[in-house]
Amino acid sequence: MSVDPQNVRKAAEALSKLVVRTPLLEAPLLNNLIAKILGLSKIRCLVKAECLQHTGAFKYRGATNRILNMAEDEKAKGVVAFSSGNFAQALSLAATLNNTKCTIIAPHDAPPLKLARTKLYGADVVLSIPDPGVNREIAASALAVKFAEETGATLLHPFDDHLVMYGQGTLALEVYEQADTKVNALIVPTGGGGMMAGCALATELVSPQTKLYTVEPEGYDDHANSFIDGVRTPLSGAPKKTVCDALQASAPGVLTWAINGSRLSGASWMSDTAAKEAMKIAFTELKLVLEPSGALGLAALLAGKVPVNDGDVVCVVACGGNVAIEDYMSMLR
Amino acid sequence: MSVDPQNVRKAAEALSKLVVRTPLLEAPLLNNLIAKILGLSKIRCLVKAECLQHTGAFKYRGATNRILNMAEDEKAKGVVAFSSGNFAQALSLAATLNNTKCTIIAPHDAPPLKLARTKLYGADVVLSIPDPGVNREIAASALAVKFAEETGATLLHPFDDHLVMYGQGTLALEVYEQADTKVNALIVPTGGGGMMAGCALATELVSPQTKLYTVEPEGYDDHANSFIDGVRTPLSGAPKKTVCDALQASAPGVLTWAINGSRLSGASWMSDTAAKEAMKIAFTELKLVLEPSGALGLAALLAGKVPVNDGDVVCVVACGGNVAIEDYMSMLR
Repeated sequence: MSVDPQNVRKAAEALSKLVVRTPLLEAPLLNNLIAKILGLSKIRCLVKAECLQHTGAFKYRGATNRILNMAEDEKAKGVVAFSSGNFAQALSLAATLNNTKCTIIAPHDAPPLKLARTKLYGADVVLSIPDPGVNREIAASALAVKFAEETGATLLHPFDDHLVMYGQGTLALEVYEQADTKVNALIVPTGGGGMMAGCALATELVSPQTKLYTVEPEGYDDHANSFIDGVRTPLSGAPKKTVCDALQASAPGVLTWAINGSRLSGASWMSDTAAKEAMKIAFTELKLVLEPSGALGLAALLAGKVPVNDGDVVCVVACGGNVAIEDYMSMLR
Repeated sequence: MSVDPQNVRKAAEALSKLVVRTPLLEAPLLNNLIAKILGLSKIRCLVKAECLQHTGAFKYRGATNRILNMAEDEKAKGVVAFSSGNFAQALSLAATLNNTKCTIIAPHDAPPLKLARTKLYGADVVLSIPDPGVNREIAASALAVKFAEETGATLLHPFDDHLVMYGQGTLALEVYEQADTKVNALIVPTGGGGMMAGCALATELVSPQTKLYTVEPEGYDDHANSFIDGVRTPLSGAPKKTVCDALQASAPGVLTWAINGSRLSGASWMSDTAAKEAMKIAFTELKLVLEPSGALGLAALLAGKVPVNDGDVVCVVACGGNVAIEDYMSMLR
């Protein structure tokens, strides 16, 4: 299948009654705060509140679009995926609502809340056995492949899949419909790059002047490295610990990078501390519960990681809110 | 001015570009939880997320509608109001955006965060001096009257004003537009009754079959008493302490009760403990930051205080999210 931005529009039509048209929020005191920090006289920050999406993250868009495009005989054999939590929950609910059996292979260190909720939405959850000698993603992916071969279930990739990307891109189409003005920049928290790729296609379609920026957790700056090198560059060295559990990809996807590589205007990474600070600001100024990964876009804007001019309109995707209340409290203390 | 439900529609037209069309959220796991607690096979809970309204509460609707209906020479002399916080913030921003000077008379024990943000939105804040012998509302109201007489500012009432009620009622018009089905019951957290009155008029206009329920904090059950007695009944005895600072009215408004008295199907009150538990559920299931008052509707539904049948669709207004993060953490610990 060739990559056609029009497919994001098709996805939006298919999903229109199935996903939450999440609000594009703006708060005057938040705008003032950002302007003050960045030394500007005026800036507008539009927040796409995807934490209010079904299952608490944008992932539900892509998961649903993927399942809607499966043949009935495929759906009858079920789906299997590897995910640390947000795609797992999304696929679990999307599968349940489409009468499809879903099995999730999860890393052993996935957040317990996300695993518990994945089960509540209807999926079976299998934990990937830890092996110190093997990359956690590779180990779990291998397990998912094996499961698919043995059961005939369709193996779904959380991000490196065009139909998943098209689904994620529908959030950006909504942004450009909801904004009352031209959007100068869109900041997308990035793991494997699926949301960024979908949003990039949507941007090309309806708002080509909008500049695109990824932001990753510290230690998972594979997009930043790839952007600098001009070529898809996996992480080297051992993975670091991060509170941004939803964005721990060790390399841009092959398919996502093929889209993103030529379309990004910048790529940055943020510390756990900055993510937590942005979570607090989202609490006070927006009344949104964000998980650390979901606050990374706001963190990047606040840290001046994205070039902005006076009067600019910047959209940040607040992409998820799946965090246990105990963890939230200990992170924000 | 006679009370005409069509005025809610007029307010909605005037406010359409000025207020947030807040989302009507629904979460399958929340529906399942409520059904389980109430012993039903199915229930749908629609949550009108007014915590995402400008200034973090529904009050912005009424405040803006009130100011939009002032004459220019009135606006030039400014506005003054008594409020413990949510109406204060709303009026402060609405006045600032309409180039009107705003002075807020606040009770000495109003939440510091709300007072600080009222100032940030542009208003002057005057604290009402505590006097153990005088009811706090009466004392502060007297101060506001005096200020209005001395300065020529227009004294605005947070709830007992038809234009304010019409503004608040726009949220219910949105609910009935956003819901994909008939709504069996609407649960409204209630202080003075302005939101309930506006919502009652909107309901009469477009969804007359929907049953209306107030819910108040424990110790502030003046609507519940009035409902039982069939006549507007102020509280007797000393006011109690409550975490629901936004709903501490000691009597239904005269004008609001004239509307609500004949239209309610029920009235209940909830404990602080129940409010906190509902805040937690809103965090986990909806990713919304709710202040205790804002969670009271959900609390009433969870406690079975509103009669429901299997398969019912119940809307709760999550009316505000203005709570300091430190208070939130200590309440939810």
